[in-house]
Amino acid sequence: MTTIVIKIGGGEGIELGPILDEFSELVKSGVRAVLVHGGSHETNLVSEQLGHPPTFIKSPSGHESRRTDRTTLEIFEMVYCGKTNKGIVEHLQTRGVNALGLSGIDGGLWKGKRKGAIRAVDDEGRTTIIRDDLSGKVESCDAALINLLLDSGRTPVLTPPALAVDGDDPGKSVAINVDADRAAAITAAALGADELLLLSNVPGVLADPSDRSTLIASTAEAGIDAVREAAGGRMKNKVLAAEEALNGGVKRSVIGSANGENPIAAARAGAGTVFEPTANPA
Amino acid sequence: MTTIVIKIGGGEGIELGPILDEFSELVKSGVRAVLVHGGSHETNLVSEQLGHPPTFIKSPSGHESRRTDRTTLEIFEMVYCGKTNKGIVEHLQTRGVNALGLSGIDGGLWKGKRKGAIRAVDDEGRTTIIRDDLSGKVESCDAALINLLLDSGRTPVLTPPALAVDGDDPGKSVAINVDADRAAAITAAALGADELLLLSNVPGVLADPSDRSTLIASTAEAGIDAVREAAGGRMKNKVLAAEEALNGGVKRSVIGSANGENPIAAARAGAGTVFEPTANPA
Repeated sequence: MTTIVIKIGGGEGIELGPILDEFSELVKSGVRAVLVHGGSHETNLVSEQLGHPPTFIKSPSGHESRRTDRTTLEIFEMVYCGKTNKGIVEHLQTRGVNALGLSGIDGGLWKGKRKGAIRAVDDEGRTTIIRDDLSGKVESCDAALINLLLDSGRTPVLTPPALAVDGDDPGKSVAINVDADRAAAITAAALGADELLLLSNVPGVLADPSDRSTLIASTAEAGIDAVREAAGGRMKNKVLAAEEALNGGVKRSVIGSANGENPIAAARAGAGTVFEPTANPA
Repeated sequence: MTTIVIKIGGGEGIELGPILDEFSELVKSGVRAVLVHGGSHETNLVSEQLGHPPTFIKSPSGHESRRTDRTTLEIFEMVYCGKTNKGIVEHLQTRGVNALGLSGIDGGLWKGKRKGAIRAVDDEGRTTIIRDDLSGKVESCDAALINLLLDSGRTPVLTPPALAVDGDDPGKSVAINVDADRAAAITAAALGADELLLLSNVPGVLADPSDRSTLIASTAEAGIDAVREAAGGRMKNKVLAAEEALNGGVKRSVIGSANGENPIAAARAGAGTVFEPTANPA
């Protein structure tokens, strides 16, 4: 039976209704489907409304990530695990899919490591060290929990945060903000999924980010190095995720659009940037 | 093996840390424990902060309930399912308990009916009819889902909303605000639990709500009618819940305090108002 992990981004301009309807049909067709979602744009809006505007950490290499203090983490959980996750679960339930929402801390589903010291470059170009950020990276996924749900006819809807663990002392565990694309990749690998689809408000990896006609159709054609080089900003994480999934045994990853007509079927048919193991035999 | 359902209220003045620590020890002692929680006070605060202040519907009989329009439901989900539920799950994980948070819509855990027309009395004493409120009552709990989690070593942490269903058409399903005390009672009955503890910021049913020394210790002593009569406001729902649990086969319900030293052990030892089947043999 085909197993597919689909990540739907939380960026601006993604209309969830149509893709969730398509996802419902996929589930009803018998595919073992797992949904992973973000919520970054809505988190920015709610953070502003709650008087705790989002701030971002810029690394020396130019990578931006959300500054996650305790208040931000709580807002993050309100949006990701509350409003967005339950909104998706409700929508799927109305389509006859027995959806069940979990965050990565529930049942210790996604475990990982919290970042220790983060080097941040401020507006004047000075580097500072941030030690109290509640962010990190997922390293493992409890496939048994997801299979328990899938085997009993329930459809998992997964979202950050994850649980950072420090050795064997649960007392040092803490919820952390993690990249949902890479969490989806770890999940797909843990499940031995056939496909990982990373769908968002961009059509795939673009050679020129401002020109949608420069879409790189596949790593097989362009070569993985060209794809890596073309990916900037948040796309970097998607490329890393697509590669991680393949390295973990997933047969195919696609970075594609969450919008348009039948975006899931389109991505499965190759719309977007397709990653396949044969693309990089070295 | 003993099965206990513990509801911790979401009212003002409840300190969650100590009772969650005690709950963790209970789980580690081998009890099959399920936690249900509210979030009403925090929802009021966040509603204010988000510029959508809470309003309440007063029924002709004087009962007050939260007016739940779509925006309120989303705020409700942010607080109950996001901030509060994930905060509790994180706390329990740090205590070595493999907690897993679910709302009543997840997996269709709590199903019920949405209220049709609600009669509301306004400040001038006029009665109006509200037809679009997203609130209702839990009628069933999927015990199989909870047992699936308990049997695999996971501890369920449950919270509203629930899923209202309308006949066989999932398209008419909708998330609804429900009373968490009564949801806990339905859960305890569905599980065949030994005990239901309803712990909040009051010590139990008081004959005089302003005087804590007038605590009614048990239905066996005072008679169920006296307990029902003494209960006003939100306590009415707790008494209904305590009775519903007994009617569903639960051996004992206790309405007690969530604060103080070891509030779970205290309630189990009889602190608060104890409901037992023998109290009302008629």
